[in-house]
Amino acid sequence: IERPRHQGMAKNTCMRWRLPLVCLLWEVAMIVLFGVFVRFGAEADAHWEEEKREMNLTSDIENDFYFRYPSFQDVHVMIFVGFGFLMTFLKRYGFGAVGFNFLLAAFGIQWALLMQGWFHSFKNGKILIGVENLINADFCVGSVCIAFGAILGKTSPIQLLVMTLFQVTLFSVNEYILLNLLHVKDAGGSMTIHTFGAYFGLTVTRVLYRPNLEQSKDKQGSVYHSDLFAMIGTLYLWMYWPSFNSAISDHGDAQHRSAINTYCSLAACVLTTMAFSSMLQKKGKLDMVHIQNATLAGGVAVGTSAEMMLTPYGSLIVGSVSGIVSTVGYVYFTPFLESRLHIQDTCGIHNLHAMPGLIGGIVGAITAAAATEDVYGKEGFIKAFDFTGVYQTRTPSIQGGFQAAGIVVSLLMAFVGGAIVGGILKLPIWGDAAAENCFEDDVYWEVPEDEESDAYHMHNPDKPASP
Amino acid sequence: IERPRHQGMAKNTCMRWRLPLVCLLWEVAMIVLFGVFVRFGAEADAHWEEEKREMNLTSDIENDFYFRYPSFQDVHVMIFVGFGFLMTFLKRYGFGAVGFNFLLAAFGIQWALLMQGWFHSFKNGKILIGVENLINADFCVGSVCIAFGAILGKTSPIQLLVMTLFQVTLFSVNEYILLNLLHVKDAGGSMTIHTFGAYFGLTVTRVLYRPNLEQSKDKQGSVYHSDLFAMIGTLYLWMYWPSFNSAISDHGDAQHRSAINTYCSLAACVLTTMAFSSMLQKKGKLDMVHIQNATLAGGVAVGTSAEMMLTPYGSLIVGSVSGIVSTVGYVYFTPFLESRLHIQDTCGIHNLHAMPGLIGGIVGAITAAAATEDVYGKEGFIKAFDFTGVYQTRTPSIQGGFQAAGIVVSLLMAFVGGAIVGGILKLPIWGDAAAENCFEDDVYWEVPEDEESDAYHMHNPDKPASP
Amino acid sequence: IERPRHQGMAKNTCMRWRLPLVCLLWEVAMIVLFGVFVRFGAEADAHWEEEKREMNLTSDIENDFYFRYPSFQDVHVMIFVGFGFLMTFLKRYGFGAVGFNFLLAAFGIQWALLMQGWFHSFKNGKILIGVENLINADFCVGSVCIAFGAILGKTSPIQLLVMTLFQVTLFSVNEYILLNLLHVKDAGGSMTIHTFGAYFGLTVTRVLYRPNLEQSKDKQGSVYHSDLFAMIGTLYLWMYWPSFNSAISDHGDAQHRSAINTYCSLAACVLTTMAFSSMLQKKGKLDMVHIQNATLAGGVAVGTSAEMMLTPYGSLIVGSVSGIVSTVGYVYFTPFLESRLHIQDTCGIHNLHAMPGLIGGIVGAITAAAATEDVYGKEGFIKAFDFTGVYQTRTPSIQGGFQAAGIVVSLLMAFVGGAIVGGILKLPIWGDAAAENCFEDDVYWEVPEDEESDAYHMHNPDKPASP
Repeated sequence: IERPRHQGMAKNTCMRWRLPLVCLLWEVAMIVLFGVFVRFGAEADAHWEEEKREMNLTSDIENDFYFRYPSFQDVHVMIFVGFGFLMTFLKRYGFGAVGFNFLLAAFGIQWALLMQGWFHSFKNGKILIGVENLINADFCVGSVCIAFGAILGKTSPIQLLVMTLFQVTLFSVNEYILLNLLHVKDAGGSMTIHTFGAYFGLTVTRVLYRPNLEQSKDKQGSVYHSDLFAMIGTLYLWMYWPSFNSAISDHGDAQHRSAINTYCSLAACVLTTMAFSSMLQKKGKLDMVHIQNATLAGGVAVGTSAEMMLTPYGSLIVGSVSGIVSTVGYVYFTPFLESRLHIQDTCGIHNLHAMPGLIGGIVGAITAAAATEDVYGKEGFIKAFDFTGVYQTRTPSIQGGFQAAGIVVSLLMAFVGGAIVGGILKLPIWGDAAAENCFEDDVYWEVPEDEESDAYHMHNPDKPASP
Repeated sequence: IERPRHQGMAKNTCMRWRLPLVCLLWEVAMIVLFGVFVRFGAEADAHWEEEKREMNLTSDIENDFYFRYPSFQDVHVMIFVGFGFLMTFLKRYGFGAVGFNFLLAAFGIQWALLMQGWFHSFKNGKILIGVENLINADFCVGSVCIAFGAILGKTSPIQLLVMTLFQVTLFSVNEYILLNLLHVKDAGGSMTIHTFGAYFGLTVTRVLYRPNLEQSKDKQGSVYHSDLFAMIGTLYLWMYWPSFNSAISDHGDAQHRSAINTYCSLAACVLTTMAFSSMLQKKGKLDMVHIQNATLAGGVAVGTSAEMMLTPYGSLIVGSVSGIVSTVGYVYFTPFLESRLHIQDTCGIHNLHAMPGLIGGIVGAITAAAATEDVYGKEGFIKAFDFTGVYQTRTPSIQGGFQAAGIVVSLLMAFVGGAIVGGILKLPIWGDAAAENCFEDDVYWEVPEDEESDAYHMHNPDKPASP
Repeated sequence: IERPRHQGMAKNTCMRWRLPLVCLLWEVAMIVLFGVFVRFGAEADAHWEEEKREMNLTSDIENDFYFRYPSFQDVHVMIFVGFGFLMTFLKRYGFGAVGFNFLLAAFGIQWALLMQGWFHSFKNGKILIGVENLINADFCVGSVCIAFGAILGKTSPIQLLVMTLFQVTLFSVNEYILLNLLHVKDAGGSMTIHTFGAYFGLTVTRVLYRPNLEQSKDKQGSVYHSDLFAMIGTLYLWMYWPSFNSAISDHGDAQHRSAINTYCSLAACVLTTMAFSSMLQKKGKLDMVHIQNATLAGGVAVGTSAEMMLTPYGSLIVGSVSGIVSTVGYVYFTPFLESRLHIQDTCGIHNLHAMPGLIGGIVGAITAAAATEDVYGKEGFIKAFDFTGVYQTRTPSIQGGFQAAGIVVSLLMAFVGGAIVGGILKLPIWGDAAAENCFEDDVYWEVPEDEESDAYHMHNPDKPASP
């Protein structure tokens, strides 16, 4: 075993038939299911002219498309460029980060359109879709991208597709329980997307624990340029988060308010992240890991409450606290989770999504419980919490209780679901790489010749950089 | 001839007077022509207040700006960042890819505003422009960016400007024939943009065939980071393609529907591309060339039909098929085209734009021919195909025939136009580089000192990487 | 003193307590001030339903959110990705460019919301904010990002935060004088953002003159990949500039017109920049510095006049001229400013923002002075220049005079303010680096191990690249 890194060990990581088979089978299934179930919603159907008359709309601009499409595109960028590039920080896993994220998200949105459609847009045997469904599908897949962050570099693309299938399913069930059964508000998904996605991913990575992962320790870091690529991801997530949290809020003031609260929370989060990043390093130097990740915690932490009357200063407080918690997490919790709990969390999603997600759920519960007709106005109060129909008699404090229950349900779904899915992913049939080949694009990607040799030359610890 | 690469051979590639002359002459021409012809359309003119009253509009939000501006910005990003960065995959041609794309697009949109304006927005001797003209100008230039992909790395900036002048002109004529004379629908430009642009570019590169191009073979590949830069281009094209295909569709349901169809098609395309990329490589590894390009074929292939009632599952089928065709093209057709037909297609536009564009035209013809009043509704049917005025009696099957005719016209225009323009570009006055200096920024750009030497050091095959 | 670069000299650049202290103190101050002053404006407040009735609005789409949010997001991208990445061109200062820009902008927008709020949105003791405030806060911070360009690589993060505090304050005062006291039009901020920001930054860098800066000369350049990162910044600024100049214009035709004028101006600017970049270099090669910067001058130069009836050809002329002026500036003025006036302008903001900003102010004054009721229409004329109330009797030529006065006021504020703030930043307590450590991320950032050594290895002039 002189050059173990390039021998591939006993593990068979060849994807030649397995990956095509899974991709094609699933795409065929999607086509069949879409054929049976999915049709255009009224606002995207060519019958819209007649529909418009019936709905008494005077202008095409009243089409939901114009209320939500710009936000949809921003969310779309967050899922594919935001999450994709955020994970390119690893020196030799940029193709996998961006490419596998692309793959799982592209598959996930199709399956999410179906799953969420059956739960929320099912009429007369058909799922009727419009721009809001596209946003929700992106949201759902966002939770998979989050979980991907925990297992980044350690799984095969097939494992990711299998995980996506199950996680999207569980996400949709959990979302249905929260939004429909518990009648919980969670427009920005602190609970449904972040808490669920992160704890699901953390459970999966715990089950997939690799005791010999230090064998690829040298590839777990970044290089100068890969950190800049990751900043592209960070910034697009940060800039478009106001769109994320406001994308499916009610038309008008709710969307407007969500964007403002998120803007404020994120701005505050940057300052406390920088402060603690500098404070917790021996020489007071800033750490790109914190800047790339903890600056985003403010968006996660107002996910539930952004559309409520959180107020701008409330947002600043939430953003400040979550930036601190997240940065402290990177410095102290991540090493602890790995060494004591055997949770190997490549991107530190515990700090960026799990803890801020919990904060978001709690802040949402408190904000809901503290709502008054005075603050919201009589109509605004009913509209904001949808206290109509069977929920007409719900009071803010009861709503707060249900919001809290939503956190618990999300956690349970994540732990149980993650354990089961982790177990499935542990089967030795999915072609994951040996520990010494983790965090290495070379396993699943054609990597350009000369740079590979160059990189090998540079990073090989057994060989001096210059002879 | 010991170090032929750095001698520049006999060719004079100095741009010092030629490039400034062309740029300045043409910009002066633009200023004069704009001065004579271009004015603000009613919705951008300060007389809008009066116009609003006349048009009986109750709100400023009815201004076309609010229907199309977000899509316009997405299209703008596709043209400049999308196409620009997609082509940065070459290890030593990043400046040329992004920079020359910037140059030709910036010139092209000015000339396109004029050409398309004369055909479509000419009233009382003036071209009246608004946001839709900006989108159409970007579209037109998109076809030049596509053609640029075929000749990437092998032409001088002057050749690109000359080609842009002619291609924009021919594009506008072709577009006029299709949209006005044949009354064809092609909102996403499968025919006018992709089929025309790609076959035009392929014809030009055929005429400019360089028999000794293998002399710069070592520079035709990518390096690790350049592949990541290219993925920025890929993802922005992929994410914003729903905006591309819906940008100039009718207000309301048509824009909404176009976005949904494109979203679905692109998602499916990613899965089949990944499947075939893995299946067609010996070791089952994924190839970044496919991921960067073939994943986009789904957007091209629904360009014509996206605004029709293609339905989501129809879009999945079209996307799946085009991903397969495109990936197979990269593996088998591109080498064949080069070795047998002497078509040197740097970016493989034949696979990404030409074949998917043809698919798009055909799918559009079929979808149009299959349209019924039942599916579209009585009003929707007339509105979708604009069966008014002299076209009142056109039936779906006749429309399908005209759509098919549109493909043929686009192909003819591309072949004939490409041959003529290729001939012009072959004149020995434009300062293109010798074969051994192709794909090398150093010819037309000031390249930073130390990296150049470093790169030379790394890539020079005659010299070992470390002594 | 054998290896002076890695000794840090006598200067103490440790940020461990100073940076956290400043960040946290200021964030606490923001929270307190927001708590006392900032509330949601009517369109973002839950009382909106009642408000809507009072304002007689029939639809949620009339909420200002839908008129301005897409433009806001574009502006947001310009501030954080545009300015951030534009400054990553330095080979070893990418973290500082993107990271410090992130820090100062995130702080600046909070303070700007307050400062601008007190001046423009203060009602009954509260600042009522909406999407327009977010845009204005981003604009205000844009002027700080511009000033940052002049001192890039030479200051500590604390200095940047101190400068931001003062510059935002001065910006708001200057803006108030221009917009409210002089009743000047400046929607795209040629005067308030660019002229003020640039001359402020140039004055600051003059006061902070470092006579020994040539000690870090080798790090003031770019490398191949850093130039591509910078192009991301360039292109996002270029593409979204139409949104920048139209974001806060009046609803309807004014926003529409601003976007068109800016689109035209920027397109023309690219051609003249390329022309002069080639013409002014000995071998006619294009220089990335010009392409990255001077191509944007066209956006700056129509900042004031874009919403006026500048007309498309007028925009082409302005864009063409500003591209020439800016490129010539990079070739001739920047070296002159440094050697003769001791103005060390890292990014050349004098060429990109100062001179084009002045052009923009002058073009705005001329365009305003030349306005006629004939061109604008009776209502349009009054609406465009807001000639209502006490300004009812203002004539175009008087308006032109006031516009010109706005330039002078902005210049005075910039010079005086910059001198004072420069003096404060000169105090030896802020932890700025010694001259030989400028343009080096290593001072304030944890830089990944192996690439640093690699870079050191490559760039160390005392050591050959290969032994």
